[in-house]
Amino acid sequence: MEIDLVFTPGELAYCDLRGKTAVVIDVFRFTTAALSALEAGAAGIFVVKEVEQAFQMREQDPSLILAGERQALKVPGFDFGNSPLEFTEEVRGKRIIWCTTNGTNAVAMAQQAEEVILASLRSAEVVAQYVQEQKRDCILIPAGLRGRYSLEDTWCAGYIAQHFHGGVLSDSAKAALCIMQAWDVKDLKASRHGQVLASLALTADVEYCLALNASRNVIKQDPISGWCSLI
Amino acid sequence: MEIDLVFTPGELAYCDLRGKTAVVIDVFRFTTAALSALEAGAAGIFVVKEVEQAFQMREQDPSLILAGERQALKVPGFDFGNSPLEFTEEVRGKRIIWCTTNGTNAVAMAQQAEEVILASLRSAEVVAQYVQEQKRDCILIPAGLRGRYSLEDTWCAGYIAQHFHGGVLSDSAKAALCIMQAWDVKDLKASRHGQVLASLALTADVEYCLALNASRNVIKQDPISGWCSLI
Repeated sequence: MEIDLVFTPGELAYCDLRGKTAVVIDVFRFTTAALSALEAGAAGIFVVKEVEQAFQMREQDPSLILAGERQALKVPGFDFGNSPLEFTEEVRGKRIIWCTTNGTNAVAMAQQAEEVILASLRSAEVVAQYVQEQKRDCILIPAGLRGRYSLEDTWCAGYIAQHFHGGVLSDSAKAALCIMQAWDVKDLKASRHGQVLASLALTADVEYCLALNASRNVIKQDPISGWCSLI
Repeated sequence: MEIDLVFTPGELAYCDLRGKTAVVIDVFRFTTAALSALEAGAAGIFVVKEVEQAFQMREQDPSLILAGERQALKVPGFDFGNSPLEFTEEVRGKRIIWCTTNGTNAVAMAQQAEEVILASLRSAEVVAQYVQEQKRDCILIPAGLRGRYSLEDTWCAGYIAQHFHGGVLSDSAKAALCIMQAWDVKDLKASRHGQVLASLALTADVEYCLALNASRNVIKQDPISGWCSLI
């Protein structure tokens, strides 16, 4: 088994994902918020690349609810933003259409993979265990920040690589491991994205997102329907 | 001054290069071979993205010579491959059109920058000094391997970042510095690209490319004509 990593989703254009497990990581905040929503009882999450698609889907099925952000803020007309703290009992049984700048795009770009998993710091260790059990080659996909590198997502990927035993790490996966070992998890709030969120008074979100291994749940995308739910 | 870094040239689509110094790094082997050719007396190097363009340019001007590779091997019909050891007295005074898989593409993708510099391990320290003197924001561009991360190019970028004093490092530049500190220069021959070259019996090339700071020359692209030469 090889554990590979792209530093940004754009690199996926140069990868063959077929037969592999893809692990999409968007610590700040989509994959963390998706975990929060599903743990609050949401029935499923479906990602779209464009805001307009989300509105179109709701037009056809008014029972759907919409979540996501543009410029880190809730999209006007959406029911929820992208904060993991927003998702409480209110979403129980609901199906959510989600659109964000980084994370949902990365999921959309990973669709050639055999299996797509959504990971965050809160679920890092249990994701590593799950992926290892699948015995497939794996590609870690930090969602990044507007097409660029993000420290927190790469750190999380490095953590998963470290807790994946018996796999061969590619050069880039080794680099992520090295980055993970050089920063402490609490330093991730000083990342560029962490600073952006702090400037928007979203430090409570940041704290929630940095709670390493607070969850034992893994999010998987159904390969047929495309809906994401807890395993 | 900010020192930024992309892990692969594809990330440049998300960068604003205007007003910046771009430093393109293709240790194995274009930027090393270009240095070798210019030090052997070549009059200039012009990069093209496609092999066909190189042939067309020579048709119009038979004094041009062609260099470069596909799959690491000399392009049929070209005068030179991509090995830094090929360029001797023979190229003195000649203008070379160059086409490779990684490095020349990265140069082509950096054309929005105020200034484009070609760096390699052999010129790493002197490039750091030169770029620092320009007092512009700088973006380090490891050329990578077929659109993916390459350890040796990122290591070289981290080395340049380390020797650039007084600049603010972006998160990705800090990551490259961390990678540079975790590997020894001699370990770079075990990189994926180093292994590919070894499998093609090009270990002499690899040794030449890894000779850190063997040169005091900097390659700069003329912003008007596009030709690259020593400063």
